[in-house]
Amino acid sequence: MAETPQATVTFGVLNETSEHESRVALTPDIVTRLRKAGVACLLESGAGAASQYVDDDYIKVGATIASADEVIAQSDVLGFVDRPGEDVIAKAKPGTWIIGMLGSFTDADYVASLEKAGMVGVAIEKLPRQLSSAQSMDEMTSQNSVMGYKAALVAANAYGSFLPMMTTAAGTIRPAKVLILGAGIAGLQAIGTARRLGAVVTAYDVRPASRGEVESLGAKFLDLGLDFSAGQGEGGYARALTPEEQAAQQAAVDEKAAGFDIVITTAKVPGRKPPVLLTKAGVDGLKRGAVIVDCAASDLGGNVEGSKVGTQVTDGGVTIIGAPYLASEVSNTASNLLSRNVADILAHFVRDGRLSIDVNEELDDALIVAGRPASSQAQA
Amino acid sequence: MAETPQATVTFGVLNETSEHESRVALTPDIVTRLRKAGVACLLESGAGAASQYVDDDYIKVGATIASADEVIAQSDVLGFVDRPGEDVIAKAKPGTWIIGMLGSFTDADYVASLEKAGMVGVAIEKLPRQLSSAQSMDEMTSQNSVMGYKAALVAANAYGSFLPMMTTAAGTIRPAKVLILGAGIAGLQAIGTARRLGAVVTAYDVRPASRGEVESLGAKFLDLGLDFSAGQGEGGYARALTPEEQAAQQAAVDEKAAGFDIVITTAKVPGRKPPVLLTKAGVDGLKRGAVIVDCAASDLGGNVEGSKVGTQVTDGGVTIIGAPYLASEVSNTASNLLSRNVADILAHFVRDGRLSIDVNEELDDALIVAGRPASSQAQA
Repeated sequence: MAETPQATVTFGVLNETSEHESRVALTPDIVTRLRKAGVACLLESGAGAASQYVDDDYIKVGATIASADEVIAQSDVLGFVDRPGEDVIAKAKPGTWIIGMLGSFTDADYVASLEKAGMVGVAIEKLPRQLSSAQSMDEMTSQNSVMGYKAALVAANAYGSFLPMMTTAAGTIRPAKVLILGAGIAGLQAIGTARRLGAVVTAYDVRPASRGEVESLGAKFLDLGLDFSAGQGEGGYARALTPEEQAAQQAAVDEKAAGFDIVITTAKVPGRKPPVLLTKAGVDGLKRGAVIVDCAASDLGGNVEGSKVGTQVTDGGVTIIGAPYLASEVSNTASNLLSRNVADILAHFVRDGRLSIDVNEELDDALIVAGRPASSQAQA
Repeated sequence: MAETPQATVTFGVLNETSEHESRVALTPDIVTRLRKAGVACLLESGAGAASQYVDDDYIKVGATIASADEVIAQSDVLGFVDRPGEDVIAKAKPGTWIIGMLGSFTDADYVASLEKAGMVGVAIEKLPRQLSSAQSMDEMTSQNSVMGYKAALVAANAYGSFLPMMTTAAGTIRPAKVLILGAGIAGLQAIGTARRLGAVVTAYDVRPASRGEVESLGAKFLDLGLDFSAGQGEGGYARALTPEEQAAQQAAVDEKAAGFDIVITTAKVPGRKPPVLLTKAGVDGLKRGAVIVDCAASDLGGNVEGSKVGTQVTDGGVTIIGAPYLASEVSNTASNLLSRNVADILAHFVRDGRLSIDVNEELDDALIVAGRPASSQAQA
């Protein structure tokens, strides 16, 4: 069953090439789903290996395994966790659709290169997350959820004591005090996981609405005695704070953080420099043995001043883990969710058995960043 | 406050020298406790560092920091997580007490060397754990408890999916199925921690009594359809199985294990080769992506056939983590509990302000493996 006879669109998936990427844009359970929608699935050999799926797992559900060049040549649409490099763009035939995190907010040159090569670019980062029809396509939500879960586990695993309270014949161990900075999807999942493990959890976010969300999970909301009430940003993300607000927030957070054993920061803002939520003064105020997990660590900086990708221990005995790849480390689940997101985006564009764009539709208008039809007519 | 004037016994603690040892036999909170009992505390500089205690933390509560040679020369009793090497024994003055895991079950030569050097050897591994007066001294219980907690965390952290069930817009993730083999202190703690994380937990132990303990924690007891009813061993440990029982058990466990995502084995038997609880056939039957944590991995073998210290991935995509040092990795809490255990053993032997042995006492009789008084009279 190398090919499904009724398929009119071929979806191709290559091995991801980023160093820290273990996810894959198509998992076997989703192959079945796509075949039913008339989409044939073609994967480069080994594409799912780092997510625990071998070629046979795909073949069993009716996908075809091929070389990278064959996948590129035979696919109408290519799906990525990240985005294709220049080599792939150069090899793909004009009119090929590219679905991925295209970096359209920050990398106009890349989008222009897709346009120039005649590709149709579907930028997942531009998904209008507030639309109910977009929820099953929302990769940022699904992946941030995985990230928040893993952040709490990584923190617990690095911490030299228990998260839960333990009463033993040799004494009682008090529960760990965990502070979550940034209470979006990732932060809420981190709250839930740290609470599952028995920690006493406090959280903070600049969005006033987050107080209710934090408290509904049984965590305390950190009261800084400050007001950033106009905090709700576009697309559901926390907006970047003004310099004055940042200074006031930092001073207050730095001071309050000293009472915690674990700090997890989750304020990743796609394509922008992450806001600093804990300064060096805040880090230095933490107890010896405290653990920080900074999910926003990157070359642009992180939520924690001085954090970098990897693990470091300060002179004061505080462990700082800069961990931007946490979703990828839970590759099996992360891929399952992401694959469903990508497939639902793809399926949205399959109309009457063909890939087409209708810029009058809000989803199409938001997602298509290259290869838009000149008129507002549906592209044939 | 370098010395407490009323102290009549000096307790010394050195840096542990084993490669994987991060614990320390004395933590600052216990210094206060010992000083009240008339025991002065003397530590080698840096002894607590790997457990997040710096010299100043000890000085603040009235301990004295010194060089290793000074500690050895000035102490009436030396406490260890492990046991002292030949160099320490050679330097210690005759009559010095040594409290530690002396390996007396398996290493008669070592015990003889203590005797020859005129040391008094207090072997923690010989603690009569069933005595209620020994409970606060029970280092194996406290450390196995830490080990079980950490084993579940390590497994969760290595597993490529979620432990809890998660319902998201992109689909539902089923909870992980966790199998705990060996339901002693460590196993029970691993059950509790895996359940906290939302996994569906099943456990097995050869001791019939363990079924009730397992079920009282909300886990299922694995029914092998076999009976090893005479399973309760000496001192609360599972006994080693006979070869026939092992074969029958292995076949059944190997078969049942195939349905699980995570297997944690905890059947560590002090000083003996650990029983194999999962053979190569069992490992090979596990799904790609499954994770095994073998707490009994050692140079003598582990609970899992082919496991070794460290992480390996089989051709079938099963990750086997051989992890004998898990308690040491939660060094702060592990040291707090262990320090209390050691201090209570020490305090037991301080009678009228002096270290003495009364072999008519069950605790003394069990613990003293070198330097026993010739008669059954209390040693002055």
